[in-house]
Formats: sequence, C-alpha cells, structure tokens
Amino acid sequence: MKHSILALALLGAFGAVQAQSSVTVYGAIDDGLAKVTDKTLAVTKRDSNKLGFRGTEDLGNGLKALFQLEMRFEPDTGTVESNTRPLFQGQTRVGLQGDFGMVRIGRGVTAVQDAKDAFDPFNGISGTPGFKSDVEVAGYTSQPLDPAGSSNDRFNNGLWYNSPVMGGVTLNLSAGTKEANGGAAVVGRGTIAAPQYAAGAPASSSPYSVAAVYKAGMFGAMLGYESNAIETKLLQAGFSVNPMTDLKLMATYARQDQDHSKASNAKTTGWLVGANYTVGSGRFLLGYGQKKPDAAITTKQASIGYEYNLSKRTFVYADVSDKKAATDVKYYGIGVHHNF
Amino acid sequence: MKHSILALALLGAFGAVQAQSSVTVYGAIDDGLAKVTDKTLAVTKRDSNKLGFRGTEDLGNGLKALFQLEMRFEPDTGTVESNTRPLFQGQTRVGLQGDFGMVRIGRGVTAVQDAKDAFDPFNGISGTPGFKSDVEVAGYTSQPLDPAGSSNDRFNNGLWYNSPVMGGVTLNLSAGTKEANGGAAVVGRGTIAAPQYAAGAPASSSPYSVAAVYKAGMFGAMLGYESNAIETKLLQAGFSVNPMTDLKLMATYARQDQDHSKASNAKTTGWLVGANYTVGSGRFLLGYGQKKPDAAITTKQASIGYEYNLSKRTFVYADVSDKKAATDVKYYGIGVHHNF
Amino acid sequence: MKHSILALALLGAFGAVQAQSSVTVYGAIDDGLAKVTDKTLAVTKRDSNKLGFRGTEDLGNGLKALFQLEMRFEPDTGTVESNTRPLFQGQTRVGLQGDFGMVRIGRGVTAVQDAKDAFDPFNGISGTPGFKSDVEVAGYTSQPLDPAGSSNDRFNNGLWYNSPVMGGVTLNLSAGTKEANGGAAVVGRGTIAAPQYAAGAPASSSPYSVAAVYKAGMFGAMLGYESNAIETKLLQAGFSVNPMTDLKLMATYARQDQDHSKASNAKTTGWLVGANYTVGSGRFLLGYGQKKPDAAITTKQASIGYEYNLSKRTFVYADVSDKKAATDVKYYGIGVHHNF
Repeated sequence: MKHSILALALLGAFGAVQAQSSVTVYGAIDDGLAKVTDKTLAVTKRDSNKLGFRGTEDLGNGLKALFQLEMRFEPDTGTVESNTRPLFQGQTRVGLQGDFGMVRIGRGVTAVQDAKDAFDPFNGISGTPGFKSDVEVAGYTSQPLDPAGSSNDRFNNGLWYNSPVMGGVTLNLSAGTKEANGGAAVVGRGTIAAPQYAAGAPASSSPYSVAAVYKAGMFGAMLGYESNAIETKLLQAGFSVNPMTDLKLMATYARQDQDHSKASNAKTTGWLVGANYTVGSGRFLLGYGQKKPDAAITTKQASIGYEYNLSKRTFVYADVSDKKAATDVKYYGIGVHHNF
Repeated sequence: MKHSILALALLGAFGAVQAQSSVTVYGAIDDGLAKVTDKTLAVTKRDSNKLGFRGTEDLGNGLKALFQLEMRFEPDTGTVESNTRPLFQGQTRVGLQGDFGMVRIGRGVTAVQDAKDAFDPFNGISGTPGFKSDVEVAGYTSQPLDPAGSSNDRFNNGLWYNSPVMGGVTLNLSAGTKEANGGAAVVGRGTIAAPQYAAGAPASSSPYSVAAVYKAGMFGAMLGYESNAIETKLLQAGFSVNPMTDLKLMATYARQDQDHSKASNAKTTGWLVGANYTVGSGRFLLGYGQKKPDAAITTKQASIGYEYNLSKRTFVYADVSDKKAATDVKYYGIGVHHNF
Repeated sequence: MKHSILALALLGAFGAVQAQSSVTVYGAIDDGLAKVTDKTLAVTKRDSNKLGFRGTEDLGNGLKALFQLEMRFEPDTGTVESNTRPLFQGQTRVGLQGDFGMVRIGRGVTAVQDAKDAFDPFNGISGTPGFKSDVEVAGYTSQPLDPAGSSNDRFNNGLWYNSPVMGGVTLNLSAGTKEANGGAAVVGRGTIAAPQYAAGAPASSSPYSVAAVYKAGMFGAMLGYESNAIETKLLQAGFSVNPMTDLKLMATYARQDQDHSKASNAKTTGWLVGANYTVGSGRFLLGYGQKKPDAAITTKQASIGYEYNLSKRTFVYADVSDKKAATDVKYYGIGVHHNF
C-alpha cells in the first residue's frame, strides 16, 4: 500500500501518467572532405545533418495526432547548425491528420520551399554543389526579418495544411503570423537611419506560401507562390519526366519580386535543368542553372555528382561543381551520408 | 579472434561496455493561436514544451537508481525555452529510491513550487491564462541570483528528498548550495553603485524549500515554506476538495516576504480559487485570483478554459483570460497539446 | 488508394522512406557534493555528463556503417558543458568498419588523448581529483585555436583510423585540417598587436595524432605523438601491469614542446603513477603525479578515491585530493555515477 502510493507519487514527479508512446529517433549524418577555390582542404557537409524525434498517435475514426522535432548540427565541429541556429532548426510541429489531409502548427519549411526539392537534381542539398536557396529560388529567402542565423526556407509561427491527393494533385498551404522574431533591420526603401523595417520589426503583411504538386505516371510538376514578411514575392515552377525507369529529367523556374523593398532592380529570375541517372547501385546527378538579377551579374552554376549506395541507408558520394558570378568558385568533394 | 578483440576495442571507443538500459524518450508539444490586447495574433504555447530522457535501474533489495533529463523549447521558433534558458531547463537529476523515499541531486523544481500545481485550476501552465509564478506564488521567484533567462521555480545545485506516503502525507524537501550562478546584480537594500548582491554574487544563505502534501479521500492539502538565495521567504498553502467525482474545487494562498532585500513594502500576498469540472471527454477550468503588493497596484486575474480530450495523450483547448493590474490584458487562445 | 498515396506523401513530409534503424540512446549522469579549499560547498560533477545517440548498420561482407553523436551537459545547472561548449561536445562522427579497421570523420577525441585513459588510475575523469588534461598530459591542449569554451583533447574537422588488433597492438591515427574554428588570438612569439596567430586564424600546420596501444596478458602499454594547430608537440607514454587480478599498477609520462610558439621555457613534462585495487564491490583509486614547466612552479597532485558499485551501471564514490602549485588546493567529494 505504502509502496503503491509512493509509486504513484513518483510517477507524478516523473511526468504525466500515460502509456508509453513510440517515439522514433531518427536522423542523418553527412560528412566529407572538400576543396574549394582559394580555401584550404576542409572537412565539411554536403547535406544537412539532423537528429530528430517524431511520433504519431491513433485517435480513432481515421484521425491521427502527430509531432516532429528536428535538431540540426555541424558534423565537423559538433555545434548547432551554423553555430547560430535554433536548437530545433529543422522543425517543431504538432498536428492532426485525417481524411481531410494534415494540419500542423509551429516552425517548418514553407509549402513552396518544401515542394521544389523533387525537381532539383541535387534534391535540395544545402552544400556548395547544390542549387538550393541561391540559383533554384532566385536567391529568395522566406525569413528576411529573422536573426541572421535563421535558415532561408522556413516560417516561424506558422500554420500548415497538406491536402489529400486529389486526381494526382496535392495542395499545400502555409502561413505565418506577423510576429516579430528579433532580426536585424532591413533598410529596404528607407535609410540606414530610418530603415523600412527596424531591428526586431514585425511583418508588414502576414507571410504565406501555397504550392500545388502533381504526380501521375512518368510526369511530375509543381507550381507555387509565396510572399514573405517584407512582401517579397516568389513564383516557383517545377517539372519532371521519367522517359526511362532509370532516368529522371527535371527543370525549375523561379521569379523573385522585391518591388516592395527595392526601388530599382527588384526582379530576379532563376532556372535550373538537370538529370538523375541510375546505374546499378550508383546514381549520377547532373545540373545546370542560372540566376539573373536585374542589372547585375548573372550567376551560372554547373554541378556533377555521383552517389554509390552501400545500403538502403548509407551512400558515399563525389561531386564537382563550378559556380561563376563575380568570381569563379570550383568545388571538389567526397563524403559519406548515413541515415538512421 | 582478431575480430572479437577489435569488437572489444570498438566497444571501448563507443563507450562503456554495459547492458543496454531502457531509456524512455518522452515529452510534450503544446502550440496554438492567441490574441492578446494590443498585440498581433500570435502562434504561441499555453503549457511548457519538453523533450525528455529518463530511466530507472533496479538495484535489488527494493532500491532503484533513477535519472531524468528534460529539455524545454519554443514550439513556434524551435529555440530553447525563451531562447535563453539552459538546454536542460526542465531538470537534470539523478538519484536513488527505496523504502526510505527518494533522494535526488542536480537541478529541478523546488519542493514548494512542485507541490502547488495540484491546487491550481490551470495545473501550473506557464501561458498567459495560467496563474503560475505571478498570482499564485505572489510573484516570488526561486532563482533571483540566476541569469535573467532562468526560470522562476527551480534550484540549481540542489538536493531533493521525497518521503514515502505516511498516513496520507508526503514530505518533500529541497535545498541548494550558496554557489553563484552568474546572474545580474540585485540592488536590494544597496545602491546601483554598491548593490546588495553584486553581479555573479553567491547566495547570502543556502536556499531551501519544504512542503508537506496531504491526500485522503475527497480532500487534498499542501503547506510549504521556501527561502531563496537572497533570503526572500515564501509561505504557500493549498487546499482541494472533490464534492463529486467530476468536480474539484481548490484554493491557494501565498505570502512573500522580501524584508531582507527591501526597505519598505516588502510583503506580497496572492490567493487563488478555482474549479475543474469534467463533462464527458471535456473539462472546464475556472480560476480567479489576486496578488496584493504592499502599497502598490493589486493584480486581479480571471480565467476560463476548456479542454477536450481527443485521446489519453492529446487534447485541444480554448481559453479566455482577463488580467487587470496597471493595464487590462485580455487573452483569447486555442491550441493543441500532445504528450508523447 | 487515396489514403495510401497520402500516407506516402506524409512519409515524405516526415523524412526519408526507410526501414527504422535501431538508434541507441545512452549516457551518463554524475553528480555529487564537493568542498574545495576557499570555496563554498558545491554540487558538482566528478566525471563528464553525457547524452548520446549511436548506431551501426550492417552493410554485408563484414562491413558496417556507424555513427555517434554525444552531447555533454552540466548536471547541476542543466546547461551545455561549461555553458559554452558545442551542443555535441562529446563527438559527432560517422564512419565505416571492416576487416581493415575503422575510419571515421567529424569531431572527436584525438588518438593520443583517447589512448591514455587506460593508464590513468582515475580513468580520465574531468573533475578536480582526476589528473586529466593538466598533470597527465603536461598541460597540453589539442585545440589551442578553438574558442575558449572548447575542450582540450579533441580535433574538429578530423579524420580517424583505428587498425584491427595485430599481435596485441592497435594503431590509432587522427588528423585535422587547417580550417579556422574562430578562436581568440594566440600571442605566441608575436606581440599583442601582432599575435603569432590572429583571432580566428587557421592552423599553421595540419594537426595530427598517432598512438600505438599494446595489450597482452598482464601487460598494457601505449606510445603516442601529437602535433596541434600551433605546432605544439606532445609525446605521451603509458604502461600498466596487473600483478594480481584485483590489482592494476600504472604509470604515464608526457612531454610537451612549445618551441614553435614560445621563445623560452618551451618544455613541460608530466608524470603520473597510480593503482586500482578491487575489494568485493568496491575499488580503491590511488594516484600521484607531477608537472614540471621549464623555469616555473612544479605542480604536485595526490588523489585517493573509492568507488562502490551498487550495480553494473551505478556506483557511489568518495575522493580526497591535494594539488600543490602556486597554491595548495584540497578537495573532498562524494557523489553518484549512473550510466544509462
């Protein structure tokens, strides 16, 4: 008797009395060696490194509760991503899923930024040989009013809706509140003394992001539109076709409009074409793209990669990349990627 | 042979050779939408968000070793709690449990602050509709010499003892050392030039916290006393009764005495009355409380909440709250709480 | 149909579609009470506190992929180690293991620093009664150009090779790149205005560390050599013998050469002798060592410890230590260590 009451008291001290749920611990570690023009040989990553925790709970009647928390880190120094980003840089979201689709709340990648990776021959890797963030989305960022350490493709204080698949089409929506997140000032159409957005300013308009994704047979496509906290607009389109099982051809187009915060040269366009070709346990990645800012230097990037699967969860890779803008940066890298 | 020795060497490289223990990964994610007077609509939390790791080990003879590590985070931005708090803000404790009760060492909630939640109609939630920290404990903080980012209800460098249940009563004790934790200066009875406690000062007296908790039949009660690092005293009492299975009525009273660090108006009192009423899968939360500082403005808060259980681990909620002090703050919030 | 496609879409949203791997969550929590000369009684640690995640994947043909991520934290305040270190202070490494041995990339303890703990009677504990870092390695640090919060015994941006056991000998190699890690300036042979290594400087030579470890019958030995980012050299030797099953005698010798960054008094030597004696569930730890800098004060340290195993994973301990250098510091400590 004494013990059972103590046991209850201790359970209380140890958190809510509840059935143990099955939390899945997952992640990826990606680390390699790279040589970049004018830099010393470096241990670096090609893709994001993550440690995550996720789970679902069956609520009955086809309804599920779900959550996902994802840390990001630097594999070569052990710090959080970029040594500045939030602990759960990847995402912190909780939501419900049912016949109606999925709704989530928290922090995560925007609908447009999430949809485009399937049309990128380097699958959205953040490393130098990839096209993410710069060429592929015309240099656009989803978080212009957030601290410098924040990533470019997420909403804080956001809501997400993913529709079920309807005739091959999925509709994804996300929106953020106007809440300030403590970033540096954005001068914009103001002056340094009186910036258009002061340090720590809230959004002038609620950011939102919508994307439609289509997949049927050998064809895939996406079309998206996003407006961020300083009312920069992004139009993003992607297309892919598999003429053979082992070959995927793909292209993206992006147009950024900074008319709200720039008096001139407010338009930027980016395009990317590429291919993935599978040969046995290996896969070749080929990409070429350009970003053209109004009245400024065009960025041109070509990348070739090769991935060799040691297993379903582990592959080694080698990449060569050349990016020409004001300077010409050549990249040679090898490494290993391990999912767990 | 070669391999088995290598295997041993590798095990060594990978940590101590030991039987795998069963670490439980647990937590809670709580996220919603709230509108507060004079603020924009925000994605925010109602309760703490946590990711924890805990386990026990049977030592034989009724003795157990136990540990618990608990992170806290912001669900809307992915940072650690308040973007400033320790990684394991929730707790870091290790201890032993047996017939004698439980002893633990590390960082965690004090005995008094831990015991009071059962007498709070909002169960100690940290969000605006709750009464925690402000009204309920008369604005008292357990960590006045810790950095600004620290929470208000914990001891660092602490020891805890929880007795077994004796005639319905549990006795809980906690005490901290005088160690400095690097907080800002506390002017107190000194001056800004010569503060009573300099920046980074140690405690002038070892902080301690004692609480007795009684539970029998339809009645529950607690009585606690705490003294913090700057010798502010807290007297805290709580009482509850369940006149019907579905109804719990409760009240708390707190008296803070800052005589050691304030020359005048050193007393603050807080009281709170409330009810929880269960109807089917739903539960109504009702609370009203006041905090009266000596010779200053009285804080008055009324809150109404409703929680609807989607399962044993997940509920949705809606709250309305009104807090009147120098200003009048109205709060309207909805959200979801998912335990895992 | 609709649901299965949605399920796939959701899997995509939740990370790569893959078989769940078995991630092991492990760690240690070590917390106690200590009294040090001229300091107040403190809650402190004797050994490192850690929370880690590791796993292996069988790739077939005797090949395995492996990863390990290890956080460090302070048990008395809940912060990351020292409140300044990287989140994954312990290590972030990924690699492959096979007949050839093990190769890893990332951040971790150097070959020399890893090999010496087996010859330290206090087994490399970081707390005051231990000999790690100061006496045992002649005050040498592996990370002189890293931020002040970094540890002393690791390489960032490193590569590791551990050979299989060959005739009782294991060969361990590690090397780092010259990459800068953002540390403070090292004046060295320069001046404060023109330091030999400016703030954020890269290594002048790639750091490396090699160690050979021998184990056969009652004898063990190690010999290692390391050169860090500012070309300080460390020669480290260790020897142990078990004349009886319950008794292990051991000794280490270290010589640090700072000739590259110091104009005079560039040599430091350290030596340590000790014993571990097991009696039933208990174990006595005895150690004495000296560190002799060129033309400066000799550090002399004696430590006695006792560990009593409550189980395979949990022990309690008591230590007394006396360290004499410019001042005389006496240490008395007790505590608990729990592996999970």
